Amino acid sequence: MSEQVGRIHTIGIIGGTGKEGQGLAYRWLKAGYRVLIGSRQLEKAQAAAVELRSLAGEGAEVSGVTNPDAATQAEVVVLTVPYAAHRPTLEGLKDCLGGKILVDVTVPLVPPKVTRVQMPPAGSAAQEALEIVGEGVQVVSAFQNISYEKLLNDEDIECDVLVCGTSKTARSVVLELVRAAGMVGFDAGPIENSVVVEGLTSILIGINKQFGVQSSGVMITGIPRDPTF
Amino acid sequence: MSEQVGRIHTIGIIGGTGKEGQGLAYRWLKAGYRVLIGSRQLEKAQAAAVELRSLAGEGAEVSGVTNPDAATQAEVVVLTVPYAAHRPTLEGLKDCLGGKILVDVTVPLVPPKVTRVQMPPAGSAAQEALEIVGEGVQVVSAFQNISYEKLLNDEDIECDVLVCGTSKTARSVVLELVRAAGMVGFDAGPIENSVVVEGLTSILIGINKQFGVQSSGVMITGIPRDPTF
Repeated sequence: MSEQVGRIHTIGIIGGTGKEGQGLAYRWLKAGYRVLIGSRQLEKAQAAAVELRSLAGEGAEVSGVTNPDAATQAEVVVLTVPYAAHRPTLEGLKDCLGGKILVDVTVPLVPPKVTRVQMPPAGSAAQEALEIVGEGVQVVSAFQNISYEKLLNDEDIECDVLVCGTSKTARSVVLELVRAAGMVGFDAGPIENSVVVEGLTSILIGINKQFGVQSSGVMITGIPRDPTF
Repeated sequence: MSEQVGRIHTIGIIGGTGKEGQGLAYRWLKAGYRVLIGSRQLEKAQAAAVELRSLAGEGAEVSGVTNPDAATQAEVVVLTVPYAAHRPTLEGLKDCLGGKILVDVTVPLVPPKVTRVQMPPAGSAAQEALEIVGEGVQVVSAFQNISYEKLLNDEDIECDVLVCGTSKTARSVVLELVRAAGMVGFDAGPIENSVVVEGLTSILIGINKQFGVQSSGVMITGIPRDPTF
């Protein structure tokens, strides 16, 4: 399998009509990427694309398509679905993903105890994705700790993005997409480490409740940082 | 079992002659706690106590004792041993721990791949500790992400302490010890969440390597913070 190392042009967002998908799409459109909003319902995808174009500007290259079309036509495929739809969505799309980078944004929250870390048998949602799609796909996990409302509102994101994945090259590609979306990303190592980042979301939800806030986050300290962040 | 809610006076540190134990002991001595440095070898414990008294001042209440004596005489027992000694140490001490709070500082690193999260079958070191010592002990995990050299050097710790544990009351007691040691702690929820905090150490070791630093850490954002931190 050839690894993706060049500049990414087209990002497909599976379940792209949700707030996570729309927030990320908006940031990437503003950075000049072409974005395909995928949905199970073509009309919902097309409506979301119209709305995103009005937000991001007429030059924004965005289309609403079905999930399989988004996966097939994109170089990087971003999965933003609720955890309940994680496995069936991936099983339906795995034949469209060969040789691509799959960015899994899913957090395996198990209601009602969403402040308790409860991982699937594979170890994490990202490892479960890898089991389903197979080794021919580079699976990277990212963006699990972000408040998506802030993406759409052009607010600064006071939360770093920890990027885990099956290869350093794939992590690098996704780190470039993190920067493009206006956030600071860190290479957080192999896909096995995704349990930490996914589980951190439960801890942050608990901290949100304790402090009566909506978007606690984490920031890496003790390293040289770009002073603009 | 009665939960510990009052002010803690005596802290026993198992494996207290290592750098983690000495760093924490130093901070707690300076905050006025009585500290028992435990070791498998009484003479090593006594030598460490002498050194700590010279660092923390003559008024520091510190003694070097055997590990079982440290566990028996303390209200809060802090375990700072390498992961290889985690299970045998706890099996040797479990009869001394009934009704107490056990603070597990252990990170289950598996050399040589210390940047890869690799948890024991119980789910984390803290859950493994709970399996060994039983439900009659309150198990809390904390301090896994801290650079211990900074504790002994009176440096500010630019890393928050995420505290997981078997009860909210026990977590509160440990959060008070975090503050006393000059750090900012957060209630990170039930013991099942410890996998996140323990595993974060592997991610931080990876970030240390990438940036050529020694003590990257994490800080919680998006919440009101004491401006002195």
